[in-house]
Amino acid sequence: MACVLPLLNGEKMHAALPLVAIDWGTTNRRLYLIDAAGNCLLEEEDHGGVASLGRAAIAGSIAQLRDRFPGHHMLMAGMIGSSIGWRDAPYVTCPAGLEQLVKGVVPTDDPLISIIPGVRSAPEDASDVMRGEEVQLIGAVAAGLVPANGVVCHPGTHTKWALIENGTIQAFRTVMTGELFALLRAHSILSDALTAPVSVGPQFDAGVRDGRTSRCLGAALFGIRAGLLLGRLEQADAASWASGLLIGSDIGFGLRLSAPDGPIAVLGDPRLTKLYASALRLSARPCFQLSGSKSFISGMHRIRGQLSCPA
Amino acid sequence: MACVLPLLNGEKMHAALPLVAIDWGTTNRRLYLIDAAGNCLLEEEDHGGVASLGRAAIAGSIAQLRDRFPGHHMLMAGMIGSSIGWRDAPYVTCPAGLEQLVKGVVPTDDPLISIIPGVRSAPEDASDVMRGEEVQLIGAVAAGLVPANGVVCHPGTHTKWALIENGTIQAFRTVMTGELFALLRAHSILSDALTAPVSVGPQFDAGVRDGRTSRCLGAALFGIRAGLLLGRLEQADAASWASGLLIGSDIGFGLRLSAPDGPIAVLGDPRLTKLYASALRLSARPCFQLSGSKSFISGMHRIRGQLSCPA
Repeated sequence: MACVLPLLNGEKMHAALPLVAIDWGTTNRRLYLIDAAGNCLLEEEDHGGVASLGRAAIAGSIAQLRDRFPGHHMLMAGMIGSSIGWRDAPYVTCPAGLEQLVKGVVPTDDPLISIIPGVRSAPEDASDVMRGEEVQLIGAVAAGLVPANGVVCHPGTHTKWALIENGTIQAFRTVMTGELFALLRAHSILSDALTAPVSVGPQFDAGVRDGRTSRCLGAALFGIRAGLLLGRLEQADAASWASGLLIGSDIGFGLRLSAPDGPIAVLGDPRLTKLYASALRLSARPCFQLSGSKSFISGMHRIRGQLSCPA
Repeated sequence: MACVLPLLNGEKMHAALPLVAIDWGTTNRRLYLIDAAGNCLLEEEDHGGVASLGRAAIAGSIAQLRDRFPGHHMLMAGMIGSSIGWRDAPYVTCPAGLEQLVKGVVPTDDPLISIIPGVRSAPEDASDVMRGEEVQLIGAVAAGLVPANGVVCHPGTHTKWALIENGTIQAFRTVMTGELFALLRAHSILSDALTAPVSVGPQFDAGVRDGRTSRCLGAALFGIRAGLLLGRLEQADAASWASGLLIGSDIGFGLRLSAPDGPIAVLGDPRLTKLYASALRLSARPCFQLSGSKSFISGMHRIRGQLSCPA
């Protein structure tokens, strides 16, 4: 592999110090300190997403990190590389694997700091984009946590369904499931009814079935409101039903993207992968759950390995 | 018909003075002064919906109306009869026509003021409710504006699709299309992109086709975001596309509720009926548009006629 970045003092410097890897999203930021063997030494999370900061505050935050981790290489992924982030890192186009991500890494004025590009759909496919999830997807493949050919579901604010072929992201689609749930909970006619925590159980399952079979989310959602008014649904169950409904609609879509065989890898925050795995099992699709953090660390470790040219 | 309300000074009083008919919704309030022949003498609209007022302010507002229209009978429909309104008017159950609405009218402490009940779905059907639209639906049927057997679409914050049989609402379903559009415009990742006015045209049509064929609204909506980021969709077109998408999903659902023949009556605010009529024509379904105000006036006039026992 070619050395594509201007690296401070060459590769020895990078091999000697842990990597600071940051998953810098819209609302949250996760930082990992990763040693040369790929082990995570430190993990931190805060609400310092790019949307809450603005460009000047982002620059200030990066300067603080540089002071805190002097001489470390910093690799950043996610919305930090978007138009609302720090530096624009153009998307690489599907099919995208480790090699394409490494080629697309964007250097900055600071030779120690680089930004991982996002991924966009192929020109012949429906418009779609991701930023941040690509590191987890490629990291999980590279670590052998998911097969080189299969389907990965990455639930979240914007759930991603990725078709992995020969270890690369061949195609993917996004469903704004988490965002819709948050909108309904915060601002809709259902707000008062969606205050209880979401849990797996009969109401969640009923919502999943509703979401799988209903062809109109707007109708199914109003059914929750009417069910409450007519005494057919308890207020305490409404949030689980609504979550099941949105996730049922989501997986109904995701499963149609893939051949009906092979287990689905559900990758991400364990609180979410648990819900999706439950909904997939209810749909008779085998699946297994993977840690998003572990996959991210694996991805960043391998990208770093390609960048610092250890051989 | 039986005289079901205690009426002040008997029927002559009611025949002599115009009726004050109010469509009192969650966010807006429309008042009509209707003479004995059913003609509208005055029409007013304001943002004094029940949600913005609270119970005490609603009572104050009603007292003001009583002073302004002394001795007039006031008939109120909509959310004013809900748990967030003034007095709870229990739903009548489908099938519901003029006779059932009249029987369900709720008197208040003031013998001149009555509340029209809402309508709920039959116990064997999916949970659904309406408040206010029933007056327009029954009014349109009673005036011969829609056939006694057919399908009526009432677009709005919560769009209603009603199956009319023998002049009664046999069954209906609600799709929260308007509310979803408002949520997306005000609070979502698409907010910045949805500021332009919605207009009928190629982008609206493309959204309608997308909404008709996509089985997952959450995926189609993110496609707008991705289309903007990838330069495939202009920001000025995004609102029309999104509106088309939601309306396409809505009518795809509504049309499955009805037999594929006969024109659809699209009843309501002309700004909305225009969009729905355009989407229906694109789906090769004949339709015609009707004024919601005219239908409401017709409905209230006929309900008043039954209440005051003129014969």
